[in-house]
Amino acid sequence: MQRQVTAGRRAALLAALPASADAMLVTKLVNVRYLTGFTGSNAALLLPREGDALLATDGRYDEQAAMEAPELVRLITRTLAADLVRQARGDRLRRVAIERHHVTLASYDGLVDAAGDEVEFVDAGDSVERLRSVKDADEMAAIAHACTVTDSAFTRVLDRLRPGVTEREVAWSLATTMRELGAEGEAFESIVAFGPHSAIPHHQPTDRALATGDFVKLDFGARVDGYHADMTRTVVCGRAADWQRDLHATVQDVQAKCRAAAVVGAVPVQLDQLARDLIRATDHDLVHGLGHGVGLEIQEQPFVVPNSAAGPLRESVTVTVEPGIYVPGRGGVRIEDTVRIDAAGGHPLTTSARDLLEV
Amino acid sequence: MQRQVTAGRRAALLAALPASADAMLVTKLVNVRYLTGFTGSNAALLLPREGDALLATDGRYDEQAAMEAPELVRLITRTLAADLVRQARGDRLRRVAIERHHVTLASYDGLVDAAGDEVEFVDAGDSVERLRSVKDADEMAAIAHACTVTDSAFTRVLDRLRPGVTEREVAWSLATTMRELGAEGEAFESIVAFGPHSAIPHHQPTDRALATGDFVKLDFGARVDGYHADMTRTVVCGRAADWQRDLHATVQDVQAKCRAAAVVGAVPVQLDQLARDLIRATDHDLVHGLGHGVGLEIQEQPFVVPNSAAGPLRESVTVTVEPGIYVPGRGGVRIEDTVRIDAAGGHPLTTSARDLLEV
Repeated sequence: MQRQVTAGRRAALLAALPASADAMLVTKLVNVRYLTGFTGSNAALLLPREGDALLATDGRYDEQAAMEAPELVRLITRTLAADLVRQARGDRLRRVAIERHHVTLASYDGLVDAAGDEVEFVDAGDSVERLRSVKDADEMAAIAHACTVTDSAFTRVLDRLRPGVTEREVAWSLATTMRELGAEGEAFESIVAFGPHSAIPHHQPTDRALATGDFVKLDFGARVDGYHADMTRTVVCGRAADWQRDLHATVQDVQAKCRAAAVVGAVPVQLDQLARDLIRATDHDLVHGLGHGVGLEIQEQPFVVPNSAAGPLRESVTVTVEPGIYVPGRGGVRIEDTVRIDAAGGHPLTTSARDLLEV
Repeated sequence: MQRQVTAGRRAALLAALPASADAMLVTKLVNVRYLTGFTGSNAALLLPREGDALLATDGRYDEQAAMEAPELVRLITRTLAADLVRQARGDRLRRVAIERHHVTLASYDGLVDAAGDEVEFVDAGDSVERLRSVKDADEMAAIAHACTVTDSAFTRVLDRLRPGVTEREVAWSLATTMRELGAEGEAFESIVAFGPHSAIPHHQPTDRALATGDFVKLDFGARVDGYHADMTRTVVCGRAADWQRDLHATVQDVQAKCRAAAVVGAVPVQLDQLARDLIRATDHDLVHGLGHGVGLEIQEQPFVVPNSAAGPLRESVTVTVEPGIYVPGRGGVRIEDTVRIDAAGGHPLTTSARDLLEV
């Protein structure tokens, strides 16, 4: 991580802070990573409006923090956030913005204790997540790379889809293939669902063997440099039946329309509603959200779901577009791409064939 | 998961609740899994003192929840916890215990909104985690199985430790081997550290190639049925130098003494202090805690660390014992076992050779 990149992010965050705040306390780990480049499993960050940022971690990560964020002052402790508040108090920072969506009631007790009467807490909201939702060029390159690995793994795993292979075997094949192709790991545990299992939106792979005529739903992705990809394709083993063709064509059409509508300025809650309306017009329901942001987290802002509070989509936001229709006991279809928002619509970063494949 | 097992856990939890509470709201996902058997990625549970338990999840998991927890009433919604509070309010439950160490300030706002003037929140503390710390026979079998897979993977990976192999290759070899041996996955991302990297307690694998004379520190584990194993071994590539033998012998001795001291009734903070005292007597420091509980989470109660508030260890608690000494720029040694607490000490569930191996 280049030093000026994280410094720029920290400056942008401070610019977005409530005017009354003298500092921000960042406790959500992935946000600390975004703002500092530190990739260990335990950290918090105090970011004063004036003066040096202070990175707290524990003794296991002293050396790693020094290597990954050499420009930051380090505090090695077990009580990260409370000690950062004590530091703020000592430095006469009166108002510290906190991540109220991350700080628990119990840890807040510790912060209040550390604050005494001298530090007051204000709400930073989800300011870091909002910054994170718009990707810079390096982030976009990492996501695009993860998507390329995902596409290639899909192509390779199609050869494994022969009658008799189990869901677990295919899931493992995806994991090893993505790794061979350069991923640092899976973005999440792959969903591999055969036949009636495809009607379960988030099915966990079992020992069910593939049979001719089964739908095969694959929802998976690679992780590269901490950034995630997310893609779903649904194919058929052997010749597709008419009901399978119809269901797949319906979802494919909805997905294409939603991708086209994912332009700069589109409002997530309306985009989700569009998918819902299109699916209801076919006498089905959408039982999950249309999509979510993708980046350092596999699910992050903006959420494209009913009642989403996210504002209009900005250029270089990355989201999934993933409508699905599920017929319990019979089968289901989901088609999902990770897309980059631009003026012309959602530009797909995952590009595997969306037409119904018979394998 | 047998229905009576989770019913027994729910009954035990209710018996441990503050007397004033009419119900408990469980929002921490792994705790919901423990109490219901439901393994999806989004859920909350309302457990009234009298009447039916109510499991909330979203539309993606309706069918899975019905299969995994058929005896529970289901609520399908996007606003899990708030809707469960609304249900409690409708059912005239006046006092609902919540997990203050899990509920964030922002989500608490939503709960207070849903509660109106009719529901009051009390603190359930970490009552579920305390129940979880003592393992039943099935849980112990799953952990023991995960530990056996971990031991076997260690034996197999020793053959890969030839000069030239990289840390990343060894980490991947551990992952694939554990999977082949029956694990559902890795307990966590393996730590593989060669040479000076072994001085970094939580080193992330790189492309560094193994050289003769390097320490090789391997910290890894398998996951079986949701339960974790955790083991560290440090070996030498080729013949060990005297300083390596001395360092290893010191840690091995401390680890054996700490395992022996991990008897029923031992107090975690004192056990941690014992390790600290033994290591300080050799003019080194212990820069991390001595250990932690292991179960459905890779790190859970009881924490064997300075200032641990955990009470005396009970029979059938599972913890790690993992002292380490790290000499910056030179190398480090950690030896770790997952142990079951019993009257005679910490009974190791990971049993790989602890003597210094030259490979």
